Amino acid sequence: MVTFEAIQQANQRIRPSARRTPVMTSRGLNERAGVEIFLKCENLQRTGSFKMRGATNFIRSMTGEDLRRGVVAFSSGNHAQAVATAAQEAGIPATVVMPEDAPKSKVQATRDRGATIIHYNRFKDDREAIGRGIAAETGATLLPPYDHPWVVIGQGTVGLELMEQVPDLDAIVACTGGGGLLAGCAVAAKGINPAIRVFGSEPELANDWALSMAKGERVAVDPSRTIADGLRTPMPGAVTFPIVQKLVEGILLVTEEEIREMVKYLATRVKILSEPSGAVATAAVVAGRLPAGIKKVGVTISGGNVDWEVLGSL
Amino acid sequence: MVTFEAIQQANQRIRPSARRTPVMTSRGLNERAGVEIFLKCENLQRTGSFKMRGATNFIRSMTGEDLRRGVVAFSSGNHAQAVATAAQEAGIPATVVMPEDAPKSKVQATRDRGATIIHYNRFKDDREAIGRGIAAETGATLLPPYDHPWVVIGQGTVGLELMEQVPDLDAIVACTGGGGLLAGCAVAAKGINPAIRVFGSEPELANDWALSMAKGERVAVDPSRTIADGLRTPMPGAVTFPIVQKLVEGILLVTEEEIREMVKYLATRVKILSEPSGAVATAAVVAGRLPAGIKKVGVTISGGNVDWEVLGSL
Repeated sequence: MVTFEAIQQANQRIRPSARRTPVMTSRGLNERAGVEIFLKCENLQRTGSFKMRGATNFIRSMTGEDLRRGVVAFSSGNHAQAVATAAQEAGIPATVVMPEDAPKSKVQATRDRGATIIHYNRFKDDREAIGRGIAAETGATLLPPYDHPWVVIGQGTVGLELMEQVPDLDAIVACTGGGGLLAGCAVAAKGINPAIRVFGSEPELANDWALSMAKGERVAVDPSRTIADGLRTPMPGAVTFPIVQKLVEGILLVTEEEIREMVKYLATRVKILSEPSGAVATAAVVAGRLPAGIKKVGVTISGGNVDWEVLGSL
Repeated sequence: MVTFEAIQQANQRIRPSARRTPVMTSRGLNERAGVEIFLKCENLQRTGSFKMRGATNFIRSMTGEDLRRGVVAFSSGNHAQAVATAAQEAGIPATVVMPEDAPKSKVQATRDRGATIIHYNRFKDDREAIGRGIAAETGATLLPPYDHPWVVIGQGTVGLELMEQVPDLDAIVACTGGGGLLAGCAVAAKGINPAIRVFGSEPELANDWALSMAKGERVAVDPSRTIADGLRTPMPGAVTFPIVQKLVEGILLVTEEEIREMVKYLATRVKILSEPSGAVATAAVVAGRLPAGIKKVGVTISGGNVDWEVLGSL
């Protein structure tokens, strides 16, 4: 169901709610990395992350009574803002289940979009059970953060745009938490150029994708405390894993220090704000984790939602 | 000498060394301000500020033996990086006189561009005298930070681009230290649309332009410690003042707190890094300092060079 054609259709469906984001370059970054890097700036996407694409595509794929009853989502932040905003624009109700320790900026922004917020404890409660309970009670549809074809298809438009904006890339690198962005971008990129090389990237402290790819099946890891809070998902998705297994060449791991350093570099030198998760793919390329022979690489800056206090702590 | 035609010619002369920077918008910012704001992102300019335009235009206007002997500049930072970079690209030597307490990132970036750095004490030494001494010794030409027609003409290309990118603006607001950006933008904007309203903006703590405009002559203020370090110039320029007096409707003042808050807002919500000076014009518009009746306003984000430690202190 996650086909190149579906991503092309989504590319029409999500406009103008989701914006065609710019691609930025930096001579300093290229010099450090020894390759040409093209930053796909989803931090400049509406709601501050690529999640706006999947949420919008999902809601615009819903119909009739389902649509009227609205959506429910659980999220550590970016997906929450995206679902709230996409629902508000569609004129349907949204309930969002958020961890108590989610970044304040994300909670506030979600509430500002008219969503009902339900808090849970990340270490004690089962957010999926809470979400399913609300869905059963209200008739709302569960809008999952990554593991649904409509969501993956929406995220794939990132890759589609990037390939249009920089047609002669040798490779793309996308960060991966649940795998929606990576799987969608892989299908889109290979649909345009079957020879392109596609890589995922994740923190060493949340290496469920690297382990799963090595083992050939989905492996769960313990809840991670990586600074890249958007990539703490403990296990690859059921929808996303087989796609990534088939199309993605490898998973590039980065240290916490490499992530921190890249957030600072992007801010002070490239002048854009990336959240820690958003800087992971760029950090991997600059750290030299790509195989040799790649000259031009597109990377995702997946989001820019980070509290000022967190920035200060770096 | 600072004519609209000269700015149009400079617009060719400075490419590709100076980049055509993007214009960004933010729904959140528009809602807060009650007007539509278009951010001219000179923080994304090469070397991180609009100063690259004036320095490039100056050096490319030099000829023969003068050009070969190179340039000397004194600067609190952004002008330094711009002169060093423009000189390096022209293959001529540059000496830069910088205050001992200039932001470390700016000193390092200037040195990286091959310039010779001479330090001075901002409260004790006369930087102009030091600069003139070096010029006399080496035959280098003094490249002033704002008070020269070639510099003003170069900075005017910011306004020219902005008017092309957003043709139906009612007004533009530029921050003003020495006045190069403001004077150049005023000539460019009025050259395209004589009815456009042009405003300057500066910190209350460095209000030499507001005082000078009120008095009808150039007034000096005490050295300021405003956080907007690029706008600490104590007095309007001799070249820039008469242009501003003729074309600019008023000077909008902002508090230190308004500047700090806007740097944070631009980072966390718009996802771009502005230095404090760069956020002054936007802060003035959001604080409601514009007269009524303006619907669409273009503002300069004049630069993005700020140390990580300074960001943390906000």
